[in-house]
Amino acid sequence: MREIGIGLIGTGFMGKTHAIGYRAASAIFPGCPGAVLRTVSDINAQAAEAMATQFGFQNWNAEWRSLLEDPAIDVISITTPNIMHREMALAAIAAGKHVHCEKPLAPNAAEALDMMAAAEQAGCVTQVGFNYIKNPLLKLARDMIAAGELGDITGFRGIHAEDFMADPEIPYSWRLDPAGGGGAVADLGSHIIGMARFLLGPISAVNAELDTVIKTRPSAPGASNRREVLVDDIARLTLRFTRGCGGSIEANWVASGRKMQLGFELNGTKGSLVFTQERLNELLHYRTGGSGFTRIETGPEHRPYGLFCVAPGHQLGFNDLKTIEMAEFLMAIDGATRQGPDFREAWEIQKIIDTAIASSKAKNWLNIH
Amino acid sequence: MREIGIGLIGTGFMGKTHAIGYRAASAIFPGCPGAVLRTVSDINAQAAEAMATQFGFQNWNAEWRSLLEDPAIDVISITTPNIMHREMALAAIAAGKHVHCEKPLAPNAAEALDMMAAAEQAGCVTQVGFNYIKNPLLKLARDMIAAGELGDITGFRGIHAEDFMADPEIPYSWRLDPAGGGGAVADLGSHIIGMARFLLGPISAVNAELDTVIKTRPSAPGASNRREVLVDDIARLTLRFTRGCGGSIEANWVASGRKMQLGFELNGTKGSLVFTQERLNELLHYRTGGSGFTRIETGPEHRPYGLFCVAPGHQLGFNDLKTIEMAEFLMAIDGATRQGPDFREAWEIQKIIDTAIASSKAKNWLNIH
Amino acid sequence: MREIGIGLIGTGFMGKTHAIGYRAASAIFPGCPGAVLRTVSDINAQAAEAMATQFGFQNWNAEWRSLLEDPAIDVISITTPNIMHREMALAAIAAGKHVHCEKPLAPNAAEALDMMAAAEQAGCVTQVGFNYIKNPLLKLARDMIAAGELGDITGFRGIHAEDFMADPEIPYSWRLDPAGGGGAVADLGSHIIGMARFLLGPISAVNAELDTVIKTRPSAPGASNRREVLVDDIARLTLRFTRGCGGSIEANWVASGRKMQLGFELNGTKGSLVFTQERLNELLHYRTGGSGFTRIETGPEHRPYGLFCVAPGHQLGFNDLKTIEMAEFLMAIDGATRQGPDFREAWEIQKIIDTAIASSKAKNWLNIH
Amino acid sequence: MREIGIGLIGTGFMGKTHAIGYRAASAIFPGCPGAVLRTVSDINAQAAEAMATQFGFQNWNAEWRSLLEDPAIDVISITTPNIMHREMALAAIAAGKHVHCEKPLAPNAAEALDMMAAAEQAGCVTQVGFNYIKNPLLKLARDMIAAGELGDITGFRGIHAEDFMADPEIPYSWRLDPAGGGGAVADLGSHIIGMARFLLGPISAVNAELDTVIKTRPSAPGASNRREVLVDDIARLTLRFTRGCGGSIEANWVASGRKMQLGFELNGTKGSLVFTQERLNELLHYRTGGSGFTRIETGPEHRPYGLFCVAPGHQLGFNDLKTIEMAEFLMAIDGATRQGPDFREAWEIQKIIDTAIASSKAKNWLNIH
Repeated sequence: MREIGIGLIGTGFMGKTHAIGYRAASAIFPGCPGAVLRTVSDINAQAAEAMATQFGFQNWNAEWRSLLEDPAIDVISITTPNIMHREMALAAIAAGKHVHCEKPLAPNAAEALDMMAAAEQAGCVTQVGFNYIKNPLLKLARDMIAAGELGDITGFRGIHAEDFMADPEIPYSWRLDPAGGGGAVADLGSHIIGMARFLLGPISAVNAELDTVIKTRPSAPGASNRREVLVDDIARLTLRFTRGCGGSIEANWVASGRKMQLGFELNGTKGSLVFTQERLNELLHYRTGGSGFTRIETGPEHRPYGLFCVAPGHQLGFNDLKTIEMAEFLMAIDGATRQGPDFREAWEIQKIIDTAIASSKAKNWLNIH
Repeated sequence: MREIGIGLIGTGFMGKTHAIGYRAASAIFPGCPGAVLRTVSDINAQAAEAMATQFGFQNWNAEWRSLLEDPAIDVISITTPNIMHREMALAAIAAGKHVHCEKPLAPNAAEALDMMAAAEQAGCVTQVGFNYIKNPLLKLARDMIAAGELGDITGFRGIHAEDFMADPEIPYSWRLDPAGGGGAVADLGSHIIGMARFLLGPISAVNAELDTVIKTRPSAPGASNRREVLVDDIARLTLRFTRGCGGSIEANWVASGRKMQLGFELNGTKGSLVFTQERLNELLHYRTGGSGFTRIETGPEHRPYGLFCVAPGHQLGFNDLKTIEMAEFLMAIDGATRQGPDFREAWEIQKIIDTAIASSKAKNWLNIH
Repeated sequence: MREIGIGLIGTGFMGKTHAIGYRAASAIFPGCPGAVLRTVSDINAQAAEAMATQFGFQNWNAEWRSLLEDPAIDVISITTPNIMHREMALAAIAAGKHVHCEKPLAPNAAEALDMMAAAEQAGCVTQVGFNYIKNPLLKLARDMIAAGELGDITGFRGIHAEDFMADPEIPYSWRLDPAGGGGAVADLGSHIIGMARFLLGPISAVNAELDTVIKTRPSAPGASNRREVLVDDIARLTLRFTRGCGGSIEANWVASGRKMQLGFELNGTKGSLVFTQERLNELLHYRTGGSGFTRIETGPEHRPYGLFCVAPGHQLGFNDLKTIEMAEFLMAIDGATRQGPDFREAWEIQKIIDTAIASSKAKNWLNIH
Repeated sequence: MREIGIGLIGTGFMGKTHAIGYRAASAIFPGCPGAVLRTVSDINAQAAEAMATQFGFQNWNAEWRSLLEDPAIDVISITTPNIMHREMALAAIAAGKHVHCEKPLAPNAAEALDMMAAAEQAGCVTQVGFNYIKNPLLKLARDMIAAGELGDITGFRGIHAEDFMADPEIPYSWRLDPAGGGGAVADLGSHIIGMARFLLGPISAVNAELDTVIKTRPSAPGASNRREVLVDDIARLTLRFTRGCGGSIEANWVASGRKMQLGFELNGTKGSLVFTQERLNELLHYRTGGSGFTRIETGPEHRPYGLFCVAPGHQLGFNDLKTIEMAEFLMAIDGATRQGPDFREAWEIQKIIDTAIASSKAKNWLNIH
């Protein structure tokens, strides 16, 4: 089986999860090419070195462009702030690499379109880190919907709420820079928008209100002066799906007490599904005519859970979802069907984010083009 | 202690709960005047007779206006379809009665205003059947918010979803008549709107989308022809509260599998609260800096639970909430502080419903006047 | 319809619930005779008077024996401490009354046998206050088991844990007097033992350990000296049922944080059931071959919920269970099938309690005779 | 940093989890030696080869004894049926290897004692696969108990129930061979017994009943004749802990619908803790005087969660627990404090299992010696 050389840019939270996922992929997935951790790059050279040591990268450096010239690197994994995604991705594509880029793909749909166009032109395999939809139970949900088990879908209600920005003393950072994209609507909203699309297909129109709850924040860590916040803390979207039903989505990063309230309830004429990432190994299913909601626990019958554990009830964790993502990406590079989400899908999601922001300013419904 | 004579109009679901509540009120609440079940009236005389027999009304008849002339009747309880509320209430007020009227108070805010104005002019005590906010845990929630325990409220997300209209073969009825008010937004939305106001105060603006999912229904029970449905099955509201925060509300009567999904999550800078009527004896509370959400179970420390049961954990049921409502109403007639919700509050709620309907047509934000 | 005159002894927690239940029974249950609250008696005359006023008893006094001589009294309801049950019940039976007695029926099986024998000899209707099994969902569970829907039952695990005795400073009282029966095993254990029998039938043998966790308590409220505790705080029973399966039960009144952890899980070859009184309107059901546990919410299809509320999801509370108990008792007096639990059933439960206490001393299995 | 060579025996469920854990350990845990997957051995050579290919073992074979002679192998990981543990472990110890052995350590305490004695004599590092106690929330629970946050512990109620043996047509196998140890009491009971000891320390006495629910099973896969089952399907243990409190444990492998019901509730004078592996990222904590049970979700403050994920709420899965186990084992070999559970601890657990089996035959309490 071939091996695939990895060049990773960024050593933060997502950098680490990429490395974990790449390391585990071929052991969990029979037929998955092995990932060779070739080089990790970070503007902080010490961070790159530490990460290379810990995760077993062969090389490390502080010059991400050097990765493009290494013929032993097949894949560039981008885990830097959003604002740097386009430059890095375009360069990687130009260098003939396959590209994994963390979400959201870009600060806006225009940049995402550039990236998508370049990737499709080059024919490279792309992947964007919407890891939560890699959950076997969400694939089950998608398949149940597609098979008509829920009947006609009548409504969707989605949320992604956390509280990591709830404290007004959390200082300004790239996450709060409008040039880098929206606030909660981009950072968290992209996940639940992507999940909605994964389950129900395209969204045709949006009517949104974006709310900046904490108006100013310290301009930097430890700073005494404060800077105005221009992005949203909470976004409330009302939606129309192309398939005909409506829905709503909330993205909220000031939801005190919530660490991972990413979930949905969707209703159809033949039943309903309820999910929350807070209990990621459970899916509630109501079948019209039945006696109540049934709690489905992940088991070997829900692919690819059985590759992680042959017995039911043992549960997957977050890093396992990332491993699925990385394995699917590596197998796609090796010729298997591309599972995505790819740059095109991320561009579609970005358009909805952009339209939500515009809708909030226009105070009106806007179509997704 | 004085006794208060009751005249009840209507023998359906709500008629029965009124009678249950009136019967129990004085036994549960020390100091509550006794309710004398004087007369029950229904256009179906047999139904009135059966109910009189079962619940112990002294009289029954099919002429609701006769109740107005009986000096032994102090209170008129109106549990008929919405469209009849105004005529009955105005007549009762004119006859010097106190009035309990089921929700929503009227088909529209104009009629509700008439009713409120007449009641306030006459000085009679009014009550509207928003029973769910009588839950001791919701009073606890309101008091916690008012005391600042949650800090500044940053957002509210409310829902009232059931599935009693999910079957497309459920025939046309007064609930579906636009002349009687909205659909789900009025029938269920009024509860969650009222709950939002109870907790957080006035709502200043709304941006709504109303969705008719089931376009036609049998024109009558057993009918083969179908009639177009003109009211909403699902309403999605984005809100601004006068206090400054935003929120969202969904009303949905086609939510397969949901029997009483009436609840909310609200976040503040110092914590969060989560409630669902599906588990009406539990309130989840997160205190910022704490280690997670705490499940508060109703107990004697949450007034007036202790009047129902001296020990914690025994749980209240739906009819107990109605008993609280009736007891508060009777005690207000006897001179105690009026707890409401009264006709004025119901008018405020109705204005939001009307504005939501208008907003959906205008596809825009509208202020509540 | 005939009316049934009630004489109530005791004005504590259970006295009030009896009065509430009697008042509501005929209004909720069509065909149920009306209960006339004739006289309430308490050794504390003021308490009797206050209760008469609040609940509408026609008379009150401090001489319980006077109730026996009143021909307008058909039923004696006994809600005094266990140690007084026999004397009162035997006198009431001798006076030709029907008798409701709170649980546990007696301090020991010998006294319970006396009471049962007298009642059966006299042919009077008896009822013992095991109110929790009046839950419609438990009747559903019993019926499912009886119909074979769970297959052969392979095991039962029951618990009744609360924390009202967890504080070591709670003083000595009649609950702690060995002459009045066991401790937690009698007070709480009787409920879960009764529930086990209700669901699965007779218990044939028991192997128990009774544990006194708090060795001494203040000898009286406010006392500085302490008295040795001779009854159990926690009882752990291993059981064999006559039907063949085994099981376990815990009774615990020092379970910090638990207010009403009365529940069970039972497994069979075709499925499982899980219940807790903490969520008394929910029953979890697993059907072998299905996809998970289904949460059944009480609804009109679960008799007699529909008499309380015609719509599903509204939920019953504790007092509603007591109303069902009282209504069934009144209807049995009026000639309907006796639903029990009657004195015979309470005697059976008491034998298990006595045997558990003996087993703990013998440190061995003992058969129930 | 040094590297540690691994020799793995067995390619089943546990063999795979060992390999997954070894592969991930050093990447997740800074300072953890790297594990070199040297050789995998299985009596089925094809299985060994397939596993070597998938997981990246350098060698494979069908002769486990050959691993002992390889100086590049530092650790022998034993994942074969219980009955083979002693022979393999003793040989590995004799060859100077460190040993990881899956649970239960041996078919009986005598064999476990042999293994422990040899290991301690040789000074090698041992580890036994009680993976569930590697959960950060269980370490939190243990630390809270040790710090007195729960006060004096008054009782423990533990369970490990699954349903993988519920179908009577599941054929006879090594799990059912009394020579290999008990049934459910050994296979599942060992986990919950180990968890009880991890939290509360030594168990001094046990009174058990072991129940064989399914009396016969097909003698082999596809066989038409049936063989008598001599081990338990359900074990019910009543316990005394050396610290003074009592408790109970159930082990059950015929609990229809349960896939991983491994959990406990323990009460103390200052609070309670509740845990179930079904929701392994949640721990419920009640603090006496507080307002209810608080749901603690795993986060970076619960070591070593933060090594897997820097943000809270993302959740660990089963394989992550195994990774913690393997990392602690590897670090102990490298000189860090041994976290166990080691062979001594496993012997202690085995003694309780043996005593439970003997107690069930004796129908009496037996002390743990």
